[in-house]
Amino acid sequence: MAPKIELQLNAAGRMVPAMVNGRPQIPYLGVGKYQPRGRKAAAPIRTAANYPADGNKVVQDLETALRQCGLRDGMVISNHHHLRHGDRIALMALRAAAKLGAKDLTWFPSASFPSQQGAIELLDSGVINHIEGSMEGPLGDYCTQGRMRGMGVLRSHGGRWQAIQDGEVHIDVAVIAAPTADVFGNADGSQGKSACGALGFALADSLYADHVLVVTDNLVPFPCVPWQIQGNNVDYVVEVDSIGDPARMVCRTAQITRSPARLRIAEFVARFLRDAGIMRNGFSFQAGAGGVALAFVVYLKQMMREAGVKARFVRGGSTKYLVELLEEGLTDYILDGESFDVDGVRSLANNRQHVVTSPFVSYNYHGKGNFASMLDAVVLGATEVDVNFNANVVTHSDGRLLHGIGDWQNCLAAGCTILAVPSFRDRIPVIVDQVTTLTGPGELIDVVVTERGIAINPLREDLIEQVRGSTLPIRSIQDIKAEIEGICGGRPQRPKAGERPVAIIKWVDGTVLDTVWQIS
Amino acid sequence: MAPKIELQLNAAGRMVPAMVNGRPQIPYLGVGKYQPRGRKAAAPIRTAANYPADGNKVVQDLETALRQCGLRDGMVISNHHHLRHGDRIALMALRAAAKLGAKDLTWFPSASFPSQQGAIELLDSGVINHIEGSMEGPLGDYCTQGRMRGMGVLRSHGGRWQAIQDGEVHIDVAVIAAPTADVFGNADGSQGKSACGALGFALADSLYADHVLVVTDNLVPFPCVPWQIQGNNVDYVVEVDSIGDPARMVCRTAQITRSPARLRIAEFVARFLRDAGIMRNGFSFQAGAGGVALAFVVYLKQMMREAGVKARFVRGGSTKYLVELLEEGLTDYILDGESFDVDGVRSLANNRQHVVTSPFVSYNYHGKGNFASMLDAVVLGATEVDVNFNANVVTHSDGRLLHGIGDWQNCLAAGCTILAVPSFRDRIPVIVDQVTTLTGPGELIDVVVTERGIAINPLREDLIEQVRGSTLPIRSIQDIKAEIEGICGGRPQRPKAGERPVAIIKWVDGTVLDTVWQIS
Repeated sequence: MAPKIELQLNAAGRMVPAMVNGRPQIPYLGVGKYQPRGRKAAAPIRTAANYPADGNKVVQDLETALRQCGLRDGMVISNHHHLRHGDRIALMALRAAAKLGAKDLTWFPSASFPSQQGAIELLDSGVINHIEGSMEGPLGDYCTQGRMRGMGVLRSHGGRWQAIQDGEVHIDVAVIAAPTADVFGNADGSQGKSACGALGFALADSLYADHVLVVTDNLVPFPCVPWQIQGNNVDYVVEVDSIGDPARMVCRTAQITRSPARLRIAEFVARFLRDAGIMRNGFSFQAGAGGVALAFVVYLKQMMREAGVKARFVRGGSTKYLVELLEEGLTDYILDGESFDVDGVRSLANNRQHVVTSPFVSYNYHGKGNFASMLDAVVLGATEVDVNFNANVVTHSDGRLLHGIGDWQNCLAAGCTILAVPSFRDRIPVIVDQVTTLTGPGELIDVVVTERGIAINPLREDLIEQVRGSTLPIRSIQDIKAEIEGICGGRPQRPKAGERPVAIIKWVDGTVLDTVWQIS
Repeated sequence: MAPKIELQLNAAGRMVPAMVNGRPQIPYLGVGKYQPRGRKAAAPIRTAANYPADGNKVVQDLETALRQCGLRDGMVISNHHHLRHGDRIALMALRAAAKLGAKDLTWFPSASFPSQQGAIELLDSGVINHIEGSMEGPLGDYCTQGRMRGMGVLRSHGGRWQAIQDGEVHIDVAVIAAPTADVFGNADGSQGKSACGALGFALADSLYADHVLVVTDNLVPFPCVPWQIQGNNVDYVVEVDSIGDPARMVCRTAQITRSPARLRIAEFVARFLRDAGIMRNGFSFQAGAGGVALAFVVYLKQMMREAGVKARFVRGGSTKYLVELLEEGLTDYILDGESFDVDGVRSLANNRQHVVTSPFVSYNYHGKGNFASMLDAVVLGATEVDVNFNANVVTHSDGRLLHGIGDWQNCLAAGCTILAVPSFRDRIPVIVDQVTTLTGPGELIDVVVTERGIAINPLREDLIEQVRGSTLPIRSIQDIKAEIEGICGGRPQRPKAGERPVAIIKWVDGTVLDTVWQIS
């Protein structure tokens, strides 16, 4: 029987644990309310006297490297997820740690995937205590079932940077899979047989971890240019046959939708940006790699062409559709955090207007601003959205944790945040009275676009005014909700309220926004 | 009468102050002997909640910006020197601080120049307490005369990064002159009417200072690409008419020598690299912007062409001569820390093989290695070199402090360090029994090339072996010294040993290598 965990009520009305994995937590205080104090965390001071003068940091294998890092029980091991479903390095590193006898590790990936469900064995055996990071599919399910020893901690990409920077998570060993690297540890993601584009998710790890390993399957003569990861932060370099399966690195969702209902949503979103006057010369937008988001870009591109409008920049995850915008001169820049397809990788490697970014510049809330709030519009998905525009992106209505946060929370800072969602999935309504897990506060969500109509957050009187008179199907969110419930036969069943927290959802400022509860 | 300053003997046999400007000092312990402890310094944690969501950080003028930074007496104000003799911003900032009534400031430029001698007035009036940074010409002279309240602290480019990183110098306000910037504070040096190339000397300032100002005369729409300085570290942006005089930004020494004696030195250096087998496919070298160094590149290029040899990389300060190597395919990369002429600026802006670097990657000794030690050869100057190959680069034989360190100390880490020096200047021998001010330990200096012959450090038996049988005039350093003394009429007069330290020379690891003494 686990000890009773003390809960506290946060500003969003959610009960959240006061202590998580032995660390006291600050409950969510409201958007922009938490004022951090103190100085950033910092890596140990090293000296060149202790590193090879010829720059060659190659060691035989991951085990050797981990041993030389002084791997101990209880350490925090980090990985990035740029190789997505194709990644071979995270599990390789964790298994090497297991082989060395390590126990009770915290695994701190920038995200974890179904392809990494091999980690369950290591969780069961006590090599891994818990995962801090988004858990997609089986790992999330494992967590929701209460089978993880420690508590899961879900953060946005920006929140992960913030947590590392602010010293909430201290990385002992960062293991960085690198599609290209030199012996000094300079590393790049845009070249090599396993090219994945950006490596920004590993940047904080390289800057703040006590020990940094670069693992590559493409060792090139110094200097590896560009160096997204700087060898000056790297302790050891390990060469392996393959860091990942390129065929599975591409985001599985990076396929344009063919569903008529979803194409309708995509078209509504594009028309909304046009009719609200957001699509104008010099504007900016971001859209993800979901099927609707991709279709939206295709519609918007057509409207931009027709109107003779050019964007100043668009934000990736880059896809073929964004690359086309750039190559056709419809945007000055792509600012890219991760490449979702091979066109994105190619363009990043070759086009100087396709610029690599990191969560620091894009999303870190504890910086002197970040790029996310400078975007005119962002198009996002959600699993649920409630009548107050609060949204959920991590759990399903049955309470199961099946999705990651990604940059979703960070993107809510845009000038106009649009959720593009089908009105129901598997006959379960997406618009609800209250979301199962609060991932984004409603005050930051401006527009909900479904195939049945568009609801504008009443707080955004300006947007309501701007589309007055357009032919768009603007409706109240309650109105749309009622129609969906009519179709689906009522409201979705609420999950039985669990009593044991198994994971928390951090807000972008490190406070605790909500709790994921055990499902028996 | 100033209080007596306690002195201690360091491992180089030099007397150095135990305390400088109120901070205890570690005397030089020998190359690679000092083991730093603890963690790096870090900037305060900020929150995006306190910065404008639209990213616009522009304020009216420098005074406003300094006031909003909370400028107070005793603060440390930093500047970079990429605009060299043309810089208008450093004095503008210091005068703005004076106007606000600030006193007792530490001015922490990455280097100061004769064109900034206006600072003397501010030193006299007590606005500036002392300068930490290289002082060329009049400011160095002012310091040597004992007229500065605090003590001067001279560091190499890498040493400056190390000092900031290790918390030895805490910057309160960094003022960064930027040839191009956006309202968010992203800044670049390679574009704009005042383009200077790299901005790497300001990078540490932007990362570690409590407050960061960007001052530009070319404000562009967000995003300023590339962003050498990240707006996420910037508090305020100030627009001015002109940050500097482009005609005076170019290094005055970036003119090839016409002196037959110096051309002979340059040719000897190139032949040495060839005959010692250092000039081979995939090799690397660095040469500065002095007349001899430039001529050396011209000779070496010819030899590379003849031998069909290509370098993997060359290190800037970039000049027209290095750019020609790159454009003719004689090197894969220029790794560039500063552009010494307009060709260097143009190439950096346009050629992806011309890569910008910072003192962190190039020179920081308290990192996990740095690029400097991976170079096969470097060609440097000196004001004096002694029979044990110890060298001086900051003072003249009369004890006057007239030159900066630049990256000179950092470059000594190269595989083969060559001092290319005339055997005498103004009939004062350059090879001496003991250097006036020790700037580089002899064990790191491998070869001294004069127009009268080449002396190889006896420690480098490998080099002696490699050039055995070549037609180069290899001689012992004592032999060359004796010949010079014959010509000049004896040894140079030693300056009268001063008793009051007015400046210290830091070694690359932050320990105190030598002292500059007051000259009355």
